[in-house]
Amino acid sequence: MSKQNIYDNEVFFESFKDNRSKDVNFNDCIETPIILSMLPDLHGKKILDIGCGMGQHAKQYSDMGAESVLGIDISENMLKYAKENNSADNISYKRMAMEDIETIDQKFDLITSSLVFDYIEDFEGLMVKIHTLLKEEGKFVFSMSHPIATSWDGVYDRYTRTETGERLYANLRNYNKEGLRKVKWAVDGYECYHRTVATIINALIKAGFTLEECRESNISDDMREKYPDVFGGTIHRPDFIFFRCRKGK
Amino acid sequence: MSKQNIYDNEVFFESFKDNRSKDVNFNDCIETPIILSMLPDLHGKKILDIGCGMGQHAKQYSDMGAESVLGIDISENMLKYAKENNSADNISYKRMAMEDIETIDQKFDLITSSLVFDYIEDFEGLMVKIHTLLKEEGKFVFSMSHPIATSWDGVYDRYTRTETGERLYANLRNYNKEGLRKVKWAVDGYECYHRTVATIINALIKAGFTLEECRESNISDDMREKYPDVFGGTIHRPDFIFFRCRKGK
Repeated sequence: MSKQNIYDNEVFFESFKDNRSKDVNFNDCIETPIILSMLPDLHGKKILDIGCGMGQHAKQYSDMGAESVLGIDISENMLKYAKENNSADNISYKRMAMEDIETIDQKFDLITSSLVFDYIEDFEGLMVKIHTLLKEEGKFVFSMSHPIATSWDGVYDRYTRTETGERLYANLRNYNKEGLRKVKWAVDGYECYHRTVATIINALIKAGFTLEECRESNISDDMREKYPDVFGGTIHRPDFIFFRCRKGK
Repeated sequence: MSKQNIYDNEVFFESFKDNRSKDVNFNDCIETPIILSMLPDLHGKKILDIGCGMGQHAKQYSDMGAESVLGIDISENMLKYAKENNSADNISYKRMAMEDIETIDQKFDLITSSLVFDYIEDFEGLMVKIHTLLKEEGKFVFSMSHPIATSWDGVYDRYTRTETGERLYANLRNYNKEGLRKVKWAVDGYECYHRTVATIINALIKAGFTLEECRESNISDDMREKYPDVFGGTIHRPDFIFFRCRKGK
């Protein structure tokens, strides 16, 4: 798979935007609180946000005191929305595939990324490029879909359900089989890469990072009760995995 | 749960010994090759093996050139077997619960442990004790049951099966719910603790370790074909997780 730009697929983008525009969604309610809690103090920091999408995180980082934020994304749709809705004097948005970040001619105190590494074929290579773009002691904080979630290959049933259709179990079958997954999510043929926990960790270490923290998302009982249509059910499985690393020992 | 000593339960021990005495078992065919491949050069190294069991690993480490190996285990049954079958001049076996290792009055170049941390209630505390027992730059290499495997709580069905009884999916339901698991394995009421990947990683980092490598076990297609009764089936799930860490930055 080459550089994926499914967010410029109009059907996918409209479905995605529609989903994100709801007050209660996985990005805002599950991913964002965790990644924000893992960030260092942003005051005076030069930040690169890889796969900035609609710019919500870039805007938050700017509001939290960052010196500057550069948001890159491959999707024109996303960047148009970001510029219109999440701009600030110290935020720049630039169209660029994450595969091309070695062309960026500056170094950063912090590199962030939310849920876009699922789309990269050469994860190990990307980790090296990110390491290169950081200043010494710089931090790298990111999330991606959890390997337990990406292990589903789109062929077998994702869930075992009760006769009335409620999810009983997440069906695990192919965790150890890494590679491209073509599944149905908003559109047919949505593509992402499945990697194991060990593959992710070893790529970070091999690139030169020191691991500082790992988190896995969880949906609280409170959230399940409050928004049963979005977060309900009895399966307690992490949707996202997060790491904070630093450059250097 | 206090210090668990299920290996001195005669029913469990006989079942375990019987299983381990088979040439083809998970410990020898899946766990051992991975942990051996993660070890540093053992020549001149003082090694502590926590939960040494029947002493197979201690004997291997001695044969691989270790200066000395101290094997500790809580089970008299295990240590009796170890002394009778896996002794050497530079191996000592000592009866001790892993909770009590802070009473050991020496420092080690390498601390190892295979599949026994499943039984510790205070995992975080144990990691601190292990860190203390290591020399600076000392290594710590261990395996434990994989969180995907320990997440099963013994209440719901572990697998979804075909009508003819073959395993179709591992049923995942409670990964995010950590804690004591009482399940049926050889005896009723076998107890172990389920911890998530993030909990394991963060305990290592908090204790002062630097992560060097993570591995997850896999059963090769070759092994599945060769020993279908032991390793057969179409579920590709890791049974064990492994880490190599070092003391210091």
